[in-house]
This record gives sequence, structure tokens and C-alpha cells, in this order.
Amino acid sequence: MPRYKLTIEYRGTPFCGWQRQDNGRGVQQAVEEAIWAVEPDAPSIIAAGRTDAGVHATGQVAHCELPKAWETNRLTRSLNHFLYPEPVSVVGIEPVADDFHARFDAKARHYLYRVLARPARPALLDGLVWHVHRPLDVEAMRAGAAHLVGHHDFTTFRSVHCQSASPVKTLDALDIGEIDGEIRFHVRARSFLHNQVRSFVGTLVQVGTGRWPPSQVADALAARDRAACGRVAPPDGLYLERVIY
Amino acid sequence: MPRYKLTIEYRGTPFCGWQRQDNGRGVQQAVEEAIWAVEPDAPSIIAAGRTDAGVHATGQVAHCELPKAWETNRLTRSLNHFLYPEPVSVVGIEPVADDFHARFDAKARHYLYRVLARPARPALLDGLVWHVHRPLDVEAMRAGAAHLVGHHDFTTFRSVHCQSASPVKTLDALDIGEIDGEIRFHVRARSFLHNQVRSFVGTLVQVGTGRWPPSQVADALAARDRAACGRVAPPDGLYLERVIY
Repeated sequence: MPRYKLTIEYRGTPFCGWQRQDNGRGVQQAVEEAIWAVEPDAPSIIAAGRTDAGVHATGQVAHCELPKAWETNRLTRSLNHFLYPEPVSVVGIEPVADDFHARFDAKARHYLYRVLARPARPALLDGLVWHVHRPLDVEAMRAGAAHLVGHHDFTTFRSVHCQSASPVKTLDALDIGEIDGEIRFHVRARSFLHNQVRSFVGTLVQVGTGRWPPSQVADALAARDRAACGRVAPPDGLYLERVIY
Repeated sequence: MPRYKLTIEYRGTPFCGWQRQDNGRGVQQAVEEAIWAVEPDAPSIIAAGRTDAGVHATGQVAHCELPKAWETNRLTRSLNHFLYPEPVSVVGIEPVADDFHARFDAKARHYLYRVLARPARPALLDGLVWHVHRPLDVEAMRAGAAHLVGHHDFTTFRSVHCQSASPVKTLDALDIGEIDGEIRFHVRARSFLHNQVRSFVGTLVQVGTGRWPPSQVADALAARDRAACGRVAPPDGLYLERVIY
């Protein structure tokens, strides 16, 4: 069967995450129902990353197999027609080789985490950023982040529910920028542990508010102990931005 | 009575505009009800610009008078408490002189208009951008915009409902940038005619899609005829960004 790579944008707020759960609707379900509206015999789809409840994506990638070949622009329009009005949009479709695998072939995943640091709650970005009431020291957070980049045992920054075989991963980048009054964390690795980005950001915000010195991030990492994690940032600010193959 | 300058952010989608209408709730009403929750005898407030239904603000300015003096951080927190969960947030409050007037003292108003130009509908920015299905030629739009900057009779770009005494205004700037896959129009003047920014953007998008040559913007301006306007862009992409005093 012809195989396609779908690039998908979504607002995670109303979903229980990428995957279907007993207690809620998954983004995967929304996309599959749109596919089944045009190709009832298509198999399930597989995504690069299973985002958690409330987590967004600008560039989630999934692959699907369809019983017949489709012109990609027409397929994009059809899927978006059936997805409407759910906050899910297929932003691109490409034909790929029969052995392309959205999860196993990914060479890097880019996550973005958006923080709005100000006293007043967000009226425009509600659900799309983490609202932190206090100002954050970006330079101190950069100093803290520098301890995390590289090849480490990230047990401290891993959910107790993480199913990864090993807590040892390589973090390629953790850059922090400021734009439009927001603080944006750009995090890049081949693969991530469960809750790793949210654990990083929650911990770095402890540094940004001055509760932790930057060096305490190194101590937390070295502890290899989940209890040493600063806190876990909420899902609202997190976006799966891009997957590289 | 002590007078305060309020800076207000809001998502315009659920409102009939800044002002109360027979058919809907205005942002002004939401803010006044929060003020009356803490100061029942406060008079009505006056804003720098009366935004239309569906138009957003990141920096609307209004002044209010309160029967007694307030510590501004405490007042901000109280108003935001009573505004919750409406998509309206007071982002700053400053004490001002007794004769400060949010509308008449404004020296410049900055509007932002956001366009998402791509085939797929927005999942994350629904209601916050104008979704244009086709790619836009930014350089051509810049060439068109250059005809509009300066002191002109803007009858072509003025709603038939405009109550301004004169159609002659000075447009200080109309800059077009690209960021995060969006096209952003930054428009600046001392004051604007009704629907002026939306008429500019709708017309420039005609140029961006190639339907109009840039020179047709100059012809439309010279016509001083509402019928020569390209089209009026929807409210979704428009933000009152900043008011300068």
C-alpha cells in the first residue's frame, strides 16, 4: 500500500494526548477518523512522538498507509475537511518509501516551550503558554541549562511512568530566547524521556525566579533521583515543533 | 477623584467590540463590571480606540476615575480576579494626572495585523490570524504599501459608517514583516478612520496574491472612492498593539 508522511499541527487542550485513553479522545483518533472518512480500510497511523494531554504540536509527524495512491494536495484538503472543526490541521503530506517509519526513523525531535512571565494572566494565549507570575532571570536559566546539554543519565528529569529502556540520553541543545514578551525554550535531541522537557523547564524556572542557583541544576542531574527535580512545568506551554528524518 | 491609566489585553472573539451594543457584550462592559466590583461608584471608562467586533488588543489603553486612591499592583490583581474567566486582562495600571484623557491625548496608535498564508487552516491560531489560502508576495505588498504612507485623503479605505470629521489622515508607517510562518503588518498613525487598517490589509493581500499590481494601490487611493478598495480583511487578524502618549 502507498505510504504517506503527514505533518500535523494541533492544539492539545481538548485532547487526552496523542493516544486514545479510556478517559478521553486522542489526536490520533481525530486524524484516523478523517482518514477513514476517505479510505475506510486504511490501517492505524503511527506518530513520531506520543504527546501528553494538553501538549500542542506545530510539526508532529505520522505515517499512514492508504489502499490507493492519492494526489497529496487533494488528500490534505480532504483530511482537513473531515477534521473540521477540531483544532487539528494537516499542514503537509508527502509520499514516502514503504519502509518509512515516523517513530523509528526520526533523527531529531525539536520541542518548544513557551513561558509568559508577568503578573497579569494571559487573555490571548490562555492554554498556549505557561503563565509564571514572577519575572525570570534568563541569563541564570541559560547557565543552569548548560549543565543539561550532552550525554547524561536523566533519571532526575524522567516521569516515574516513563517506559524508556534507559534513562541515558543525549541532549543536543537547550537554547533560551526572548520574543514578544515571552521566554521560549528550544530543546533538541534524538529522543526524549517521558516528561523530560517539562521537567527541564520546571527546574530552570526555579533558577529563573532565584529560588535555585544555576549550579543546583548540575546537582539535581548528578543525583539521578526524581525527587531532585525542581518541578514539572504544565503541558500548556509545550509544542512538538519539528521532527527531523 | 484619582485617575488611572489601564493597559488592557483582550481576545476580541466573544465580544461585539469595545463598546456595548444592543446585540452583544462589549469589552468595556467586562472591564467596568470588574471596576464596579471593587468601586461601585466609579464612573464609566474611556478608551483610546473603540475596536470592532472580533478585534483583539495587546495594549488598549483606557482611563478610569476611582473614588479613592489604590496601590496599583493591588488594583491590577483585583480587577483581573473579577475579570476571570473572560479573555480580558489588565496588564498594567499607572496613576495619571486629573486631566489625562486616553482618547484625546493619544499621540500615536500602533496596530498589528497577522496573516497566516498557507493551504491548511490554522489549528493553533484559529480566530487570532486571517487565514489566506494562497502564498503572498511580500515584496509586492511592500511596494503597494509605500503608496499609502503619508498625508492623504483615505476615503477609499474608510467604512461608510465612519464618523470621523475628515477622511484626510497621516499614515506614519505601514511595515510588513515575516515571522514564524506569518506575515505581519505593522501600521502606525496618530489616528485612524473606521476599518482603515482592515481596508489596507485586504487591499494589499490583493497585491500579494498577484490579482493587483502594486500601482493599483495608488490608483485606488487617488480614486477617493470606497468602491475602489480591494476588500476589507476580517477582524480576526487585527490587534490594537500600543498607544503612545
